[in-house]
Amino acid sequence: MRNIKCVIAYDGTDFLGWQTQASGRTVQGVLEDALATILGERVRVHAAGRTDAGVHALGQVVNFKTVSSIPVAGFLRGINSMLAHDVTVLSAEEAASDFHARYSAKLKSYVYVIDTAPQKNPFLRRYTHHLGAPLDVEAMGRAAGILCGEHDFSSFMGAGSCVKSHVRTVVSSRVESRGSLVYLWVQGGGFLRHMVRNIAGTLILVGRGRLDSSGVERILEGRDRSLAGPTAPPQGLYLVSVTY
Amino acid sequence: MRNIKCVIAYDGTDFLGWQTQASGRTVQGVLEDALATILGERVRVHAAGRTDAGVHALGQVVNFKTVSSIPVAGFLRGINSMLAHDVTVLSAEEAASDFHARYSAKLKSYVYVIDTAPQKNPFLRRYTHHLGAPLDVEAMGRAAGILCGEHDFSSFMGAGSCVKSHVRTVVSSRVESRGSLVYLWVQGGGFLRHMVRNIAGTLILVGRGRLDSSGVERILEGRDRSLAGPTAPPQGLYLVSVTY
Repeated sequence: MRNIKCVIAYDGTDFLGWQTQASGRTVQGVLEDALATILGERVRVHAAGRTDAGVHALGQVVNFKTVSSIPVAGFLRGINSMLAHDVTVLSAEEAASDFHARYSAKLKSYVYVIDTAPQKNPFLRRYTHHLGAPLDVEAMGRAAGILCGEHDFSSFMGAGSCVKSHVRTVVSSRVESRGSLVYLWVQGGGFLRHMVRNIAGTLILVGRGRLDSSGVERILEGRDRSLAGPTAPPQGLYLVSVTY
Repeated sequence: MRNIKCVIAYDGTDFLGWQTQASGRTVQGVLEDALATILGERVRVHAAGRTDAGVHALGQVVNFKTVSSIPVAGFLRGINSMLAHDVTVLSAEEAASDFHARYSAKLKSYVYVIDTAPQKNPFLRRYTHHLGAPLDVEAMGRAAGILCGEHDFSSFMGAGSCVKSHVRTVVSSRVESRGSLVYLWVQGGGFLRHMVRNIAGTLILVGRGRLDSSGVERILEGRDRSLAGPTAPPQGLYLVSVTY
């Protein structure tokens, strides 16, 4: 069995997220269907991050095992000619037999993009959260720094999650702006359900002056989801890259 | 009667173009419907450039006459709250009574964007023409220069057009690249149907080495549509701005 690792990008707008569901179009479903044709067998594809509906990926990593002997270059051309326009395989290579896109991941990087321009930009509507109001980027940056390190992130965990530990390590969390866009970059060893979007929703409160850094500290220490800000919408979120 | 001038932007992907048709979603139709609600009367909206299906606008200019006394700022908020996410009114102001978005226009600027990256980028698929092959940008730039000035552009005119004169003046025509994207900027006093897309299709042949500058000169002099390259697809084209 060969173990193939791929880096993929997708526009999450028209997907119900990564994971195959009983019905509806998912990235995993679309990939596995295309792979069945290319490889001549059904394979199960594992992803580093199981992105939610509407969330994008610039550098999602996946792997699958196959008995097919198709050369990697031919595979890449073949799969991309079969896939819809909103998902692309950027690269493919053979990986060690014990490589697993999710369990072998060391760090994942996400970016959350907010558009502060008063008018909605028709070209950014699928790719940013249109806030339409100014943000205090420096205040957001100070608050973002508080989240760095190993913490219990219960206050930023989405409902319906059933993981054992709520402790995660954020190695980097910073905010920058360019034109009307504000970018929240977060890198960490792992993330709870909706964690980045809940952090984004909370930092937007900071940027709007409704919360300060000590408030964010109290939210983190409170370990209670009801303390933090709302979940920011999915279209602003990108899985940027995964480090192994 | 007040004469209102607006600058609008739209993602052309999900429109059948600017002009109202018997059926189907058009920018003019969507705007006129929203205006009827805001103004309390049906108005006819005139656009500087009647873009085709799938063509985008960053700075389309329109005007309409109304008896409504709604203040411009309130109008802007109201109309944008009613419009779908793929069209936005960027600004609105009162214009002289004889201002007409189309007939008063002095210059229009278009850009045509080509993606030369081998793999399709899921985020650019709606907003560029994915060529997926390298282009000789310098050769394209030399050929683009030939089109500057007053010429009979019959060779670059789309079928089904019934204008009297095929003479148009291109004041600027240049090609530049940034990363995998190649931009063809064209500014002129007026354009024939499909003219920019036919120029783009022809310059792509130049960029691929299948035609040289003297070939473009012969095409221009030939005044015959069958001599020029194919019509490049609509999703790469943007109406950038209009000068009065």
